[in-house]
Amino acid sequence: MLETGRLDHNLGRMGERARALGVRLRPHLKTAKSYDVARLATAGEFGGITVSTLAEAEYFLAGGITDLLYAVGIVPSKLPRAARLVEAGAHLTLILDSVETARAVAAFADLRRVAFAVLIEIDTGEGRSGVLPEAADLVEIGTALEQPPYCRLQGVITHAGHSYAARDLETVARIAEAERSGAVRAAERLRAAGLSVPVVSVGSTPTALHARHLSGVTELRAGVYMFGDLFQAQIGSCTLDDLAVSVLATVTGHHRDAGHLLIDAGALALSKDRSTADAPHDYGFGLLVHADGTPFAQELRIFKVYQEHGLVRAADGALPFDELPIGAQVRVLPNHVCMTAAMYDRYHLVKNGALAGEWTRTNGW
Amino acid sequence: MLETGRLDHNLGRMGERARALGVRLRPHLKTAKSYDVARLATAGEFGGITVSTLAEAEYFLAGGITDLLYAVGIVPSKLPRAARLVEAGAHLTLILDSVETARAVAAFADLRRVAFAVLIEIDTGEGRSGVLPEAADLVEIGTALEQPPYCRLQGVITHAGHSYAARDLETVARIAEAERSGAVRAAERLRAAGLSVPVVSVGSTPTALHARHLSGVTELRAGVYMFGDLFQAQIGSCTLDDLAVSVLATVTGHHRDAGHLLIDAGALALSKDRSTADAPHDYGFGLLVHADGTPFAQELRIFKVYQEHGLVRAADGALPFDELPIGAQVRVLPNHVCMTAAMYDRYHLVKNGALAGEWTRTNGW
Repeated sequence: MLETGRLDHNLGRMGERARALGVRLRPHLKTAKSYDVARLATAGEFGGITVSTLAEAEYFLAGGITDLLYAVGIVPSKLPRAARLVEAGAHLTLILDSVETARAVAAFADLRRVAFAVLIEIDTGEGRSGVLPEAADLVEIGTALEQPPYCRLQGVITHAGHSYAARDLETVARIAEAERSGAVRAAERLRAAGLSVPVVSVGSTPTALHARHLSGVTELRAGVYMFGDLFQAQIGSCTLDDLAVSVLATVTGHHRDAGHLLIDAGALALSKDRSTADAPHDYGFGLLVHADGTPFAQELRIFKVYQEHGLVRAADGALPFDELPIGAQVRVLPNHVCMTAAMYDRYHLVKNGALAGEWTRTNGW
Repeated sequence: MLETGRLDHNLGRMGERARALGVRLRPHLKTAKSYDVARLATAGEFGGITVSTLAEAEYFLAGGITDLLYAVGIVPSKLPRAARLVEAGAHLTLILDSVETARAVAAFADLRRVAFAVLIEIDTGEGRSGVLPEAADLVEIGTALEQPPYCRLQGVITHAGHSYAARDLETVARIAEAERSGAVRAAERLRAAGLSVPVVSVGSTPTALHARHLSGVTELRAGVYMFGDLFQAQIGSCTLDDLAVSVLATVTGHHRDAGHLLIDAGALALSKDRSTADAPHDYGFGLLVHADGTPFAQELRIFKVYQEHGLVRAADGALPFDELPIGAQVRVLPNHVCMTAAMYDRYHLVKNGALAGEWTRTNGW
């Protein structure tokens, strides 16, 4: 279920943030993976999006979105597929973080005569991928890429994904500043070497929302803000009332002796993401709300999942069995909506409390 | 990637087990969700299968498999869809565990004039769903169901899923005996009340493999044995050499300072299942093997996942970076193959080391 009113609210909020920060917003569609959501998320923006797979790039290009940033490190074996996107009309930006991949991309672009824009990935503290802002080989990567007319160094990109581990907004703001300053520093080093660096791209939902300023940054990426989830609500990115996506489920059994009830949403319907386990409040595998989206008086959480079963308990006190007879419908708010939404091929829209159609989404690679 | 040689071996082994135990095998397709796998898994058996969703039932019926046991507790709202399966030619068996649902199913069957066979779900120790073998309302449920000609009590069903928590084969054998004896006891109570109970159905991969005998049982269900996974190998259901399904991935980055390398398989490609965390040996989010399926000299495990990135470390010692250059292909053996396979819409077959076509699978509900 996708509450379109909440989606609109969340999109508007991030759009305002980007305008206030003086950067352009390139929404990340890795969460929504839906053309209809992309259309709304880019409305009033410059029109470019971020994607996490080449399958997404193909899907969105087919829908008419041409400015695509594929924000996962490219490997040479994926270049032929990337080239087909460009030949089909995409303005495609790739990212990488090594000299050898930079050389391979430049050589491929020349050979195939296909235009790739490339961002160098910078590690500003996450420790996942990217080179450090002060890395010895940063300029060498930039130089390897600057091979006109086909390959073009476009700038730098970073993602402070470790903002998810912050537990207060002061820490998020500090991580946001490290994200900004690290990306800007890398850009300055490249410029000092005579390279053109038009794009400085940063972003994660928490740092986008809580950065104090983004001087020197040109572009902001974020994705999960569109829908929100229990984890993002925990770390201050949104409130529970902002969560736009939920899973509709049915009560399938009462087990009064054991003190639990069963619903027909389990590990596949919800994912096994346990990100709230380390958050201030552990929601198990998800939080139950009424079928109309309003909260229960008590906190009812899914404490165990099997492939197609979820076991529900009250956080405190007894379960309201009478309020939830077998056959009753409920919704489950997800821990991590990127994982949960990936189990579905469509969204059922809810607008002003009524079903209002479906939007498809893409999955796979 | 699906190694067909290993699949054949695993199917043959369970078929022999069922014959040795003197019961018929009703393979559970919740793991494979593939018509082609079902065809092989039922070859030489009586032809019935088990499914975990109505979407699977529809998919397999379209492929010509008509004897379908939908082994998740039915709720009244799903009966119209179940009825359409019967009207389309399915011999459909439902399961339930409450008097109220039994009455609703019998009333619906009469009203719609559609034949449902029903098994009563028995809890033989898992504590998830089902009534206890000695439950006061067991006979009442049976009586409510015995409403010919449309609704028919077919028997009892149980699933000792708690066998997954056993850490030695002696414990598995003891759980298997409790599964058997509980189901048989429930059947005896129903028979003593004058009800006909032709089917006594038990099963989980571990108990199916390690039960000492299955006296009184008529039918065995199991699913994950077809593919195996790291968790099942831990609890003695198979060896690492039996694992038939793996995820093909590419090395996307080297981070020598941090002591890890990146692959392009993360939380979506592998699932976030961490079932080996509680097993004797923790494989993180999966174990790397060579692209041809052979093991590395060292244990290389995925210790962290992001949506599209997996971070690999050696369990002991240094990573063999030179053996795994950027662009190198590897395979990842999954912790829990039911969860991992659910992220894909097809299997790429490998036979004698060569690609040998694709098999589709179904997902969703």
